[in-house]
Amino acid sequence: MTRPLHFSAFVMNTPSHIIHGLWRDPAGDQIRFNELDLWIDLAKKLDRGGFDAIFFADVVGLYGNHRGSWDFQAEIGLQIPSHDPMAIISALAANTEYLGLAFSEGPIQEPPFNFARRVSTLDHASNGRIAWNIVTNLLGWENFSHDERLAHDDRYVLTEEYVDVVYKLWEGSWEDDALLADRRSGRYADPSKIHRINHVSEHYQVEGPHLVAPSPQRTPVLFQAGSSKVGRDFAARNAEAQFIAAPDPETARPLIEETRQLVESHGRHRDDLKFFQQLSFVVGSTEEEAAAKHRELEEKTDVEGMIAHFGGMIGVDLGGYEIDTPLEVIETEGMQSRLAWLRESAENERPTLRDAAQLLGRRSRMVGTPEQIADRLAQWRDAGIDGINIVTATIPGTYEEFIDQVMPVLRQRGLASPEPVAGTFRNKLFGSDRLSERHPAARYRGAFAVQSAATGEN
Amino acid sequence: MTRPLHFSAFVMNTPSHIIHGLWRDPAGDQIRFNELDLWIDLAKKLDRGGFDAIFFADVVGLYGNHRGSWDFQAEIGLQIPSHDPMAIISALAANTEYLGLAFSEGPIQEPPFNFARRVSTLDHASNGRIAWNIVTNLLGWENFSHDERLAHDDRYVLTEEYVDVVYKLWEGSWEDDALLADRRSGRYADPSKIHRINHVSEHYQVEGPHLVAPSPQRTPVLFQAGSSKVGRDFAARNAEAQFIAAPDPETARPLIEETRQLVESHGRHRDDLKFFQQLSFVVGSTEEEAAAKHRELEEKTDVEGMIAHFGGMIGVDLGGYEIDTPLEVIETEGMQSRLAWLRESAENERPTLRDAAQLLGRRSRMVGTPEQIADRLAQWRDAGIDGINIVTATIPGTYEEFIDQVMPVLRQRGLASPEPVAGTFRNKLFGSDRLSERHPAARYRGAFAVQSAATGEN
Repeated sequence: MTRPLHFSAFVMNTPSHIIHGLWRDPAGDQIRFNELDLWIDLAKKLDRGGFDAIFFADVVGLYGNHRGSWDFQAEIGLQIPSHDPMAIISALAANTEYLGLAFSEGPIQEPPFNFARRVSTLDHASNGRIAWNIVTNLLGWENFSHDERLAHDDRYVLTEEYVDVVYKLWEGSWEDDALLADRRSGRYADPSKIHRINHVSEHYQVEGPHLVAPSPQRTPVLFQAGSSKVGRDFAARNAEAQFIAAPDPETARPLIEETRQLVESHGRHRDDLKFFQQLSFVVGSTEEEAAAKHRELEEKTDVEGMIAHFGGMIGVDLGGYEIDTPLEVIETEGMQSRLAWLRESAENERPTLRDAAQLLGRRSRMVGTPEQIADRLAQWRDAGIDGINIVTATIPGTYEEFIDQVMPVLRQRGLASPEPVAGTFRNKLFGSDRLSERHPAARYRGAFAVQSAATGEN
Repeated sequence: MTRPLHFSAFVMNTPSHIIHGLWRDPAGDQIRFNELDLWIDLAKKLDRGGFDAIFFADVVGLYGNHRGSWDFQAEIGLQIPSHDPMAIISALAANTEYLGLAFSEGPIQEPPFNFARRVSTLDHASNGRIAWNIVTNLLGWENFSHDERLAHDDRYVLTEEYVDVVYKLWEGSWEDDALLADRRSGRYADPSKIHRINHVSEHYQVEGPHLVAPSPQRTPVLFQAGSSKVGRDFAARNAEAQFIAAPDPETARPLIEETRQLVESHGRHRDDLKFFQQLSFVVGSTEEEAAAKHRELEEKTDVEGMIAHFGGMIGVDLGGYEIDTPLEVIETEGMQSRLAWLRESAENERPTLRDAAQLLGRRSRMVGTPEQIADRLAQWRDAGIDGINIVTATIPGTYEEFIDQVMPVLRQRGLASPEPVAGTFRNKLFGSDRLSERHPAARYRGAFAVQSAATGEN
């Protein structure tokens, strides 16, 4: 089996994304994440180094309290300050040739008409290299004129409505041959092939037409990361790539198979959804060197930062507990269900918060020589993984190391493509510029032409 | 008097902005406005050529009907397709050193929290070169879940509320020394100097804090273009630069003086507001050459496009009238008031739509040698103008011609700065990175520190 994997750099426009405290390391540059050059230089390296994408996570508000306030988050740069990812995409597009450019945005952030127009603008500007990670906005509702955050499942209902609007704009508003740009006839577009969408639903009324002619991909590549039942069902219907964070290939395999069956149950093909596993790497030329680098990395990791972030994700203030508190003492419902895997993975019989922090850092981490890493990645691939999403320890160190040391071995073994694949990002993943005809958005192709023929209006 | 003028390129991310039909000219490249390279190449030329800014107009919907539909607009590329300007700003920032980067956005397009964060992201990324043209969204309400467009004055009320939120985020949420990014102490920021804004008003509830540490300018340079009474009052309070389109220096002088007095009446200094006059140029090495080029330009201009655009601005479908219809026949209230200047300027005693189209094209147009243009620009400057906003005929031709032929003469005469002014865009205009203390946004400086001291919360 020689199927090559896809490679994505998993970053966030902030000093401290997942492995906290590392911005303090003089070997890393993310302390100056606010400068455009940091991201341009990284994107160029990834582009030349065989990566398929740079992927920006994002949140638009603070995590919940730690030790009773958000002071600690600000002290250690835990996703604050954080800058908008979409705003810097065009600079990365201008400086790269092959790299897919993926960012996260959710429905509370921007009305669908404006969002769809910006994405189409960027898909033109990048020659079709844009991907959108559809999020449902876990955080930030207090900044968007909402009295309170919608409940988990209701956030998905809102997001369904949102994607429906943008699908109509991207796939249905302009026919493929509507744009003429013909100097001789003097016609820029054929209005009979541009249509209003006249969308009306609970939250959105959007007449259109879309203001942008079809971009290379029309709809950007659609990513999603939901792991709940509702989230996985949304992904099975809407996503073209799902981010997962399984602890090992053995756990990933049935999860992927189950999701692929869900994809099929919605009338799509099992391969219409790709799986990207989140991983982090510590590479050494010998096992001993790798182990020593790993010890060093763990020493530099801010343990309380890991705990605060985890608490923020599950909505529990873990800041009041001593670091050696056994997890079982922390009696909250969220904790008990979310920590099942932690308890199973822990070496300690009564794992503590300290163990949890360490495990969170080590989760899906590979420590070893390039050859050992290649062996392990082959197992992930054989479990059904299509690509990996590589967590930042330092920028650009994490990615330079991977490109210089691991990629050559992966290429030898057919685990990485021998040369970059040109064209759109979707072409890299699926061999096609446009969304599959089995995707729900495809039903809007031609739909508004029929409508306008009936009413006599575009 | 040797006060140099400021120079801005007045563009739109669309094939046909103001002088319609010119995308058909093989000498122009705006037929491929969707490509990032067009804008990067233009921005580089402007940056090296002594321009202070590139300024993107924008609309987010169609103009009203012409001949009963929007078909004609789509046929001639009249501001459709149109792409988002903000989405390409970071690519221009990465490729320029001095150029101010200005774009238009209004309150219906994006919630203020997201907008403020994007602007701050870009102000960091450009080292403080961002300007925001505050618009009230004349068009596009049908795309933003509004049952109907707010009336003119109500749009200003909404916009006031919107700017109030973003002022709080930009000026008040982070204190100047809140960011530490200190590897030694391990502290990224001082939370006691970061504050929620807890904004509550009719349309917006925004807790904050702002997610971005102070950017070089904090608040971007604020542009505005309103010419109505309410619009001018808004500008007199909020804007740092106003775009005007006076027919001649003699008309501009009292208008500027009156507005400066209005500025003073709001507790600001008369020079706290700069005036940018919209102009277009036809340059020849002799008068005869210039006149010939002008005839050629008029032949290439799409006369009906000019009329359709004008009708769209005043909300009247002029498409049903023969081109030689006298204006006085078109009996609508909007027409009569808006066309007063046209009647006065027309050579024909009973000016027709054809005359109107020609006058619209010629409005504020200078045709002549570089020396003649310099003479005329000196008159504009002496009438109180601070800068000019140069309309596109072709990209990049209009700007190349101006840079190569006119700029050297302007420099000789002290009408253009001998060399580019480094630093932030506000520094170019006002000699300061930050908003004046007399601006209404300045009242939020330190305001939330006081609040948090009182409540014990950040």
